[in-house]
Amino acid sequence: MANFQLDELFLSTLKAWVAEQADQKIRKHLHELHYADIAEIIEDLELNQAVYIIKLLDTEKTADALAEVDEDFRERIMTQLSAKEIATEVEELDTDDAADLIAELPDERKEKVLAQIEDPEHLSDIRELLKYDEDTAGSLMAKELVKVKEDLSVLKCVNEMRAQAEHVTRVHSIYVVSATNKLLGRLSLKDLLTANSRAKVKDIFIPKVDFVYVDEDVQEVAKIMSKYDLEAIPVVNKKKQLLGRITIDDIVDVIKEEADKDYQMAAGISNDVEADDTIVELTRARLPWLFLGLLGGLGSVFILKDFESIMTQPQLRSLFFYTPLIAAMAGNVGVQSSAIIVQGLANDVVKGSLVKRLLKEIGLSLINGFFLSMVLIAFGLIVQQELILSVTVAVSMMGVIVVAALIGTFVPIVLDKRGIDPAIATGPFITTSNDIFGIFLFFYIAQLILGF
Amino acid sequence: MANFQLDELFLSTLKAWVAEQADQKIRKHLHELHYADIAEIIEDLELNQAVYIIKLLDTEKTADALAEVDEDFRERIMTQLSAKEIATEVEELDTDDAADLIAELPDERKEKVLAQIEDPEHLSDIRELLKYDEDTAGSLMAKELVKVKEDLSVLKCVNEMRAQAEHVTRVHSIYVVSATNKLLGRLSLKDLLTANSRAKVKDIFIPKVDFVYVDEDVQEVAKIMSKYDLEAIPVVNKKKQLLGRITIDDIVDVIKEEADKDYQMAAGISNDVEADDTIVELTRARLPWLFLGLLGGLGSVFILKDFESIMTQPQLRSLFFYTPLIAAMAGNVGVQSSAIIVQGLANDVVKGSLVKRLLKEIGLSLINGFFLSMVLIAFGLIVQQELILSVTVAVSMMGVIVVAALIGTFVPIVLDKRGIDPAIATGPFITTSNDIFGIFLFFYIAQLILGF
Repeated sequence: MANFQLDELFLSTLKAWVAEQADQKIRKHLHELHYADIAEIIEDLELNQAVYIIKLLDTEKTADALAEVDEDFRERIMTQLSAKEIATEVEELDTDDAADLIAELPDERKEKVLAQIEDPEHLSDIRELLKYDEDTAGSLMAKELVKVKEDLSVLKCVNEMRAQAEHVTRVHSIYVVSATNKLLGRLSLKDLLTANSRAKVKDIFIPKVDFVYVDEDVQEVAKIMSKYDLEAIPVVNKKKQLLGRITIDDIVDVIKEEADKDYQMAAGISNDVEADDTIVELTRARLPWLFLGLLGGLGSVFILKDFESIMTQPQLRSLFFYTPLIAAMAGNVGVQSSAIIVQGLANDVVKGSLVKRLLKEIGLSLINGFFLSMVLIAFGLIVQQELILSVTVAVSMMGVIVVAALIGTFVPIVLDKRGIDPAIATGPFITTSNDIFGIFLFFYIAQLILGF
Repeated sequence: MANFQLDELFLSTLKAWVAEQADQKIRKHLHELHYADIAEIIEDLELNQAVYIIKLLDTEKTADALAEVDEDFRERIMTQLSAKEIATEVEELDTDDAADLIAELPDERKEKVLAQIEDPEHLSDIRELLKYDEDTAGSLMAKELVKVKEDLSVLKCVNEMRAQAEHVTRVHSIYVVSATNKLLGRLSLKDLLTANSRAKVKDIFIPKVDFVYVDEDVQEVAKIMSKYDLEAIPVVNKKKQLLGRITIDDIVDVIKEEADKDYQMAAGISNDVEADDTIVELTRARLPWLFLGLLGGLGSVFILKDFESIMTQPQLRSLFFYTPLIAAMAGNVGVQSSAIIVQGLANDVVKGSLVKRLLKEIGLSLINGFFLSMVLIAFGLIVQQELILSVTVAVSMMGVIVVAALIGTFVPIVLDKRGIDPAIATGPFITTSNDIFGIFLFFYIAQLILGF
């Protein structure tokens, strides 16, 4: 079974072998493993150990493993490899992985590595892929695919495919193109298996084929492929000429990365970090948001200072006890509202007008606010707090809840319309601004009611 | 191109056609669409309109569309269909989708629908799938697959496959089994295409095959398939007998659902809701967490009340101005720490001992805390606050940051060890407890330093 479990014992044994340069043992034990497992092992080694193993094993295995290794570590590994060594790895990779790997190199090394690639076709494919912008379909696609011209016979088609399939890891569809490489349709392997061998491609191909343009956003590609349950999608240029194809495994990575990013943003973590990253990396990802929170907190110091005078009035000073409650409610409601909108935007379910949506949030806040206010008044009765004070807190809280919900709804929609990732609105950004705004509103409404 | 865009105009036209019972027009315009698009359209209709369209169109199309429709709405649609009508839809579906659909029916209807299924093999497959627990590999797998016995010749194998492939939407691998249905390996379609037709299956099959056990957790299946870039994985029982297979499109859904769930939990939203759900559904998902936040806030009222006496001391009362700041820092730090742990647990990267991890968090908190404290002291100097007060707030804040980070790290790890989803720890749960704890600690440390 594939589910290899990396354990500490194996890892320390391997490290000892590297120290002893026990090449035979390393080769023997790593040879059988899947490249994804080797990547997992490499990520747990020191840099020099990782480089040692990569230089030792067959490039056929290390190339794919290297492509799977965490980007930061891969960049460090590549600094320890010569241009020739990198080129040898790159020659083993599919064009998409090859281009990704080369794109990570500093500019002057890129050319050196490219100059060492022997296969001219592989080289020109990689050069083409390097041109496409990150986050576009072009950056995800591979040049490896199987295509046949429409006027071939099924028999010739099978032969042609056999030759092409040698270079393609997984054949999903056979794309059918015109003499000028325009995408016309597809043949499924299954259809081919069950077709009469005397038929022509043009007689049996399916003219309906999903495709994306090369400059399409990767998130959009992910949506299309997952909506239509596609395992591969061809990529075309404006003239509908077939340029490459994107496979679902890359889309799975896109979906996971996007989800991780949104989750981290909601938690106030910028940059892509993992629990095992260094303290410096983690600080760099976390400190900016804490700093923002601190500034917000200092803002609320000013607001509260303005109401310092009521501290001398025993009936009123209790209002101060409610500031953390108000801040928490403002933050929680804001995050709830924005999270629902952010997810809705991501899944394209947010339809209808902004006004309608804001009205719905107001309704929702009034229901939630009413219930919570009742609890608050009940609490006041139990602790024998003056009723007018409880009512004041309850009414102010309702106001804060409504406003926080509106901010939470409004901000991500506005960000999205301006082309900014709305996920940023669910994190400390919304919490901090709602904290300040909530506290201000709370005291302001209390002042109106109690007239201090 | 597949990327159908649903617009308001088309939707209102369609609704008008339904009202007029313009069956021809409806059929003509929906006929060409992909079932995923029809599902999207159905979700935007009223119940009676959706039911009308489902009854009108061919079951070949509506069955798949129905399987794609949002679960809540599908359940409502099914209440409007007869057992016979549901059975007709179910007969068109692959076994996995068929079983999912039937599983949603109330118990007494299940049997009525099953009784109407005509194909005995389809029926027994569905009955088998209904037995597996949700969240296990068994609940995701389909019975549709192509398998051949090891002693067949390649030629017979191709014929056998042609026959089987008729019932399988996508053939990824041909599984090779023993006479007792034990999984032995696989044949790729590509290998078969390029093999000598006189060879036997046992000569050319690949004995190395990834598989999962039928009771494996779906999240684990998702990890395995995405790690090894698999597009399909066979599912076996304890005796390694082949039961079914899971395809990547279902795994993509699992990954997306899990990410959405974690994100919603972090934002304090229980249940799976969408922006377009009803106010009642949204309230039910949001109110409990707000109520929890309210209880936390009321807890902090008690803590602050305890320190009411310092309100009469002008030098000390400024401490109260810092409570929102402290609460925000405690909440933010806690959420950051727990989010990193939750993601680490999900991706299996949290290795090493708990003690080591807690020590790392302390180091990280001290660095962040030190920087933020300096900002706080600088702020104090600027607003000409007494230095001892600034230092007190700064020191207390550092203490709060360290403790919040420890709680944020500790809680998800403990939850995970007890088999509770650690993602719950990133939401209002951590924020609320850290709020209370932070405020208490803040005043407690201040009391120690200032001796009030």
